Amino acid sequence: RINGERLWDSLMEMAKIGPGVAGGNNRQTLTDADAEGRALFARWCEEAGCTLGVDGMGTMFATRAGTDSEALPVYVGSHLDTQPTGGKFDGVLGVLGALEVVRSMNDLGIRTKHPIVVTNWTNEEGARFAPAMLASGVFAGVHTLDYAYARRDLEGRSFGEELARIGWKGEEPVGARKMHAYYELHIEQGPILEAEGRQIGVVTHCQGLWWLEFTLTGREAHTGSTPMTMRTNAGLAMARIFEMVQEVAMAAQPGAVGGVGQVTFSPNSRNVLPGKVVFTVDIRSPDQGKLDGMRAEIEARAADICAELGVGCSVEPVGHFDPVTFAPELVAHVRAAAEKLGLSHMDLISGAGHDACWAARIAPATMVMCPCVGGLSHNEAEEISPEWATAGTNVLFHAVLETAGV
Amino acid sequence: RINGERLWDSLMEMAKIGPGVAGGNNRQTLTDADAEGRALFARWCEEAGCTLGVDGMGTMFATRAGTDSEALPVYVGSHLDTQPTGGKFDGVLGVLGALEVVRSMNDLGIRTKHPIVVTNWTNEEGARFAPAMLASGVFAGVHTLDYAYARRDLEGRSFGEELARIGWKGEEPVGARKMHAYYELHIEQGPILEAEGRQIGVVTHCQGLWWLEFTLTGREAHTGSTPMTMRTNAGLAMARIFEMVQEVAMAAQPGAVGGVGQVTFSPNSRNVLPGKVVFTVDIRSPDQGKLDGMRAEIEARAADICAELGVGCSVEPVGHFDPVTFAPELVAHVRAAAEKLGLSHMDLISGAGHDACWAARIAPATMVMCPCVGGLSHNEAEEISPEWATAGTNVLFHAVLETAGV
Ligand SMILES: NC(=O)NCCC(=O)O
Ligand SMILES: NC(=O)NCCC(=O)O
Repeated sequence: RINGERLWDSLMEMAKIGPGVAGGNNRQTLTDADAEGRALFARWCEEAGCTLGVDGMGTMFATRAGTDSEALPVYVGSHLDTQPTGGKFDGVLGVLGALEVVRSMNDLGIRTKHPIVVTNWTNEEGARFAPAMLASGVFAGVHTLDYAYARRDLEGRSFGEELARIGWKGEEPVGARKMHAYYELHIEQGPILEAEGRQIGVVTHCQGLWWLEFTLTGREAHTGSTPMTMRTNAGLAMARIFEMVQEVAMAAQPGAVGGVGQVTFSPNSRNVLPGKVVFTVDIRSPDQGKLDGMRAEIEARAADICAELGVGCSVEPVGHFDPVTFAPELVAHVRAAAEKLGLSHMDLISGAGHDACWAARIAPATMVMCPCVGGLSHNEAEEISPEWATAGTNVLFHAVLETAGV
Repeated sequence: RINGERLWDSLMEMAKIGPGVAGGNNRQTLTDADAEGRALFARWCEEAGCTLGVDGMGTMFATRAGTDSEALPVYVGSHLDTQPTGGKFDGVLGVLGALEVVRSMNDLGIRTKHPIVVTNWTNEEGARFAPAMLASGVFAGVHTLDYAYARRDLEGRSFGEELARIGWKGEEPVGARKMHAYYELHIEQGPILEAEGRQIGVVTHCQGLWWLEFTLTGREAHTGSTPMTMRTNAGLAMARIFEMVQEVAMAAQPGAVGGVGQVTFSPNSRNVLPGKVVFTVDIRSPDQGKLDGMRAEIEARAADICAELGVGCSVEPVGHFDPVTFAPELVAHVRAAAEKLGLSHMDLISGAGHDACWAARIAPATMVMCPCVGGLSHNEAEEISPEWATAGTNVLFHAVLETAGV
């Protein structure tokens, strides 16, 4: 069994870095706070006897050697970056849970055949730089390094520049490492486990996603002296598209979601009809046909809405992954570990995207989930209990042991 | 007659300060560019023999002495601040037109009984600090100085701090000056004069306005893992309110407008349903009953929309003026001047708010308008012809002469 108290202490210690405004965290990727969190994590890994490698995307790999020098490592990790108003556990539990697995192996004198690599992927959240899961995506060959470096935040700063600025651009070629398997522990970020009263989610699938960035072009004009009939109102077109996305998502129930989190109005002045409105529609479903069908319907209806209002409309996908099926043999290890530990469990489809989704393209991969209070995440009020964290990490520990070989 | 070439040269000279990105200007109030524009204007006023006074709101008053030391001055002005993506003429024509009136009086050796005060009001646009027409509002006793100093831009900087920072916080008590009359030349910012083929708008009224700042409170949550039924979606509520405002404005036709120019999503991350959405509804009508009726209907229906979605809704008026009737004797002078000069003209209701609206509360006031291409304003592509500028300024010249007494 892992040391739940030590795990919780580390979680609370990390949460002091990049504090939020309401009890959570603002440790967005490639900020000074991210650098500080990385330094603490690196120190902990070294104290646990691991060897640290950093790749060209800034992803951190802390290796605990195995007994078989030929055996490929089992990777275990998640991310330390947060949303601007994020929780203390989203991602962090998976990284520090993996570290706790190694610390417990040290305590118990366990040697594994395969090395264990505790992993902190860069920019999982995609809050500052779209798309999400950027570093794992480059690692898995889904994106090029040039594409990743060229991503820009709302202030126009590029990923590449910011990575160099905080001093975490590593020497390792991205994706050169080969994986025996990949495990990721994460909070559910949804309401199902808590509602069903289960301690462990055995994650069999992850739903797919499209982020569709709309750029609507209206005519900047005075809100007071421009008659209603002479307006080319991009804000109104946006409103109609929001409602339509809601309608499309509701019609696709169950097993689909759709919404908008980011909006930029230009010039954003109270008495100017916007010349440009940019926003990102986020749609998801575990069903590939449904997901792509929603995208097609949204794009077609948005084009009609804009045409009717004379508003220019262009759409660029800025994030995408297909629905994922995790490796059945690893999923079975997770289920067996929960059984062995006497923990209640159920199969789950992940509602959020995770680095495991990209890892699954290059190695057998799966996830372990624990509940979070009210299903709330991407909110500073995100909360889990120490018992949930311990239970999830114990399942991770046993599943990893099974795959890594004692 | 005024010197149209000199006027145009001055307009083009001022337009070099705070250039925009598409041929217009970004000389927002209390920025470094505003300070630079003020310095140039101050130099021109001194070269024209005027004495400069500056009040505690930063409003600039350049006085050309009259022949009767007892006579109250005739004020003539507008504003030099612009929208973030503003035109070269909105406001600037009124200030430099007034200066041209004084320069022409100098050229022609005309002495007036009443002094003439060329005026540059601070923060007319209200783009950076709501409400619009802030300094003239304090001057007219509509707002207190403390209220004005406490206004904040989107970055949280206050009007009072920024006024001191750029060095234009004057010593004069605001509103201490008494006016014999107030004239303002302005581009129409709407399509009527051009469509009707008239050179001069004789402005009889100005429509009233409400700026209603809505703050919607949703629940920040993950866009992927939060089921549709568990969302408290402030963005969706906003969309429904936008559509409702459009509906209310259309139902109030003719003689009303409604729209939204400014929106702030928080935390504004693609995969977070917004916890807070702030936006300002701008509604206007020359009919007091219609204006207040629209406000009441919008607030009531917004409350219903939010209640249905479980979204919190609060509304704060951040800008307001009642419909204005300008002084008939001054309006008659404008009409007579246009007639005398052989310029085609028509009566107009101003669609935009102007400093003249507040001045009208403390003195007889009116405006002269000239057309602008396509009715376009609050857009860098805003355009007028030198002939229109000259015609408008000639009318201003003759109306002012009539009131100031030769
Ligand atoms: N787990 C998580 O919040 N990932 C961010 C990517 C997403 O939006 O699903
Ligand atoms: N003239 C002008 O654009 N004034 C700004 C105030 C308003 O929105 O009407």
